[in-house]
Amino acid sequence: MARIALDVMGTDRGPAEIVAGAIMAAGAGNELVLVGDREVIEPELTATGADLDVVHAPDVVGMGEDPARAVRDKPRSSIMVAARLVASGDADALVSAGSTGAAMTAASIVIGRLEGIQRPAIATPIPRATGIPTLVLDAGANLEVKPAHLVRFAVMGALVAEIVYGIDRPRVGLLNIGEEPSKGREVERSAFGLLEEAPVNFVGNIEGGDIPGDVADVVVTDGFTGNVVLKTMEGTAGLVLALVSDAFGRRPGGIPGEMLRVVEEVRMLIDPELCAGGAYLLGTRSGVVIGHGSSSRNAVFNAVGLAAEGVKGGLSERMERGLARS
Amino acid sequence: MARIALDVMGTDRGPAEIVAGAIMAAGAGNELVLVGDREVIEPELTATGADLDVVHAPDVVGMGEDPARAVRDKPRSSIMVAARLVASGDADALVSAGSTGAAMTAASIVIGRLEGIQRPAIATPIPRATGIPTLVLDAGANLEVKPAHLVRFAVMGALVAEIVYGIDRPRVGLLNIGEEPSKGREVERSAFGLLEEAPVNFVGNIEGGDIPGDVADVVVTDGFTGNVVLKTMEGTAGLVLALVSDAFGRRPGGIPGEMLRVVEEVRMLIDPELCAGGAYLLGTRSGVVIGHGSSSRNAVFNAVGLAAEGVKGGLSERMERGLARS
Repeated sequence: MARIALDVMGTDRGPAEIVAGAIMAAGAGNELVLVGDREVIEPELTATGADLDVVHAPDVVGMGEDPARAVRDKPRSSIMVAARLVASGDADALVSAGSTGAAMTAASIVIGRLEGIQRPAIATPIPRATGIPTLVLDAGANLEVKPAHLVRFAVMGALVAEIVYGIDRPRVGLLNIGEEPSKGREVERSAFGLLEEAPVNFVGNIEGGDIPGDVADVVVTDGFTGNVVLKTMEGTAGLVLALVSDAFGRRPGGIPGEMLRVVEEVRMLIDPELCAGGAYLLGTRSGVVIGHGSSSRNAVFNAVGLAAEGVKGGLSERMERGLARS
Repeated sequence: MARIALDVMGTDRGPAEIVAGAIMAAGAGNELVLVGDREVIEPELTATGADLDVVHAPDVVGMGEDPARAVRDKPRSSIMVAARLVASGDADALVSAGSTGAAMTAASIVIGRLEGIQRPAIATPIPRATGIPTLVLDAGANLEVKPAHLVRFAVMGALVAEIVYGIDRPRVGLLNIGEEPSKGREVERSAFGLLEEAPVNFVGNIEGGDIPGDVADVVVTDGFTGNVVLKTMEGTAGLVLALVSDAFGRRPGGIPGEMLRVVEEVRMLIDPELCAGGAYLLGTRSGVVIGHGSSSRNAVFNAVGLAAEGVKGGLSERMERGLARS
């Protein structure tokens, strides 16, 4: 069974929420090692009668700290201790909802990168009406990319779609400003040709409006565009739901309870945190899942599930072989 | 009074729809010159009893044609004839819902660009809950930009926000992946400093999720990111509304008529076409408004209104002075 090292520290809601998610995940059959301040974690476990492994780490990397420096200066921080558990084989994958930069740095240094990967990429699952998310990568780790990077993103993303979401021959789209191969910047025009030759099911250029649709299962782009797009989607979805609620609220008699429930249903369907709980950090030797800093227990539960699915499907091993072939 | 040259040809819905929009706009007090095939336009006018000026143009640039070549090969196309009316002073501004590329090329060549502008930028109004749109530029004309271009976008966008939307000291935001000045690519990091020194009310970096919010009135970014963001917003808003409709539809008894009306209200509120009818092409010597190829008569009505507001407020003249100062 997959054994997941969970970094309990450095999140917005505090360790109790992360431990609560861990207990849910353990209840669903996951094997976990909680990494963090034993003095804080153990009372939470005792209170609920849960019996999970704990590995003590006295230090924490805060959200505001410079990741490279913090990771170097705090070898006993929870993220570094958790990464070492994975590197040594005491755990199979890492989940952290703390500083994304610290998790990326710790994973790169301690767990190591796959051959040909200079810097891991972040693959974020986006809710779709079909119920199966689209993966967008890179979502912010590599702000500027070369055409060959986009090919690696395609290979890695397609493996996640296949192994974790059970999609057969996942469709890979290149995010662009039009369908024709001649569209876009030099990087997109060059990547188009490379993706046609790559061992993926490349469906061509897709536009921003296609991301939430059923056009591609994996969308590759640079980390700047990816990050902006993800935040734009979140903001737009929030605005539209607020407008719908407001419009109901202005009706005589106010907003009917049933309509409120419908809006809430949709809000939960499209909440990226509830959809997946975290984003994959791809290109490291073992699985790494990064949760949002404000992750709830449900998000932690889902993030652990993502990490476990990856281990079960041999994601890292298959990715190493896939990258070697591409 | 502002006299607007309206290119009637080359749109998806055909000239009758554009003429219908022109008649509405004339009814609201705008002075128009319709440019296109007289044989097609005049029967439409006669049928409604409307008496608008028509300038004949026997050729049309199609949506699929290479803009630069089409504009060169078809000097008697409606977009070229309309642009010449503006260049010669027979009209004050140009509105076209035909090929965006052809309108940009014709405007650059025939109407001419302001000092320091190599290529005009597209400023697209985005609906906001406040009712006053946010302007996003560039929305696709300049895929890659230098920091100084972003400063020009800021100056031009702020003038539109002030003159057309009546916003006092419009807030200008730089689209980025985080708030800190150190965030982003080299182009954003350099532009941040330049924008702090520029004669605009720069409010710093804003993220994708802030665009539909009340954080900035003008959002500057490169044309690749801008185009992707706008299409992503449209796709996401459409998905969320479809999910809300579906959720209502699944209730026992189906979707209540009143709820359908609420969803429709919100759809109209966020429809970019109904919000503005077109995007400004900024950096040309006279005002140019580009409508969507599938513009309805309402969109044409709004696009003419946009163009007329710009002329009334002396947009082009003030832009020339503003650019000289920045």
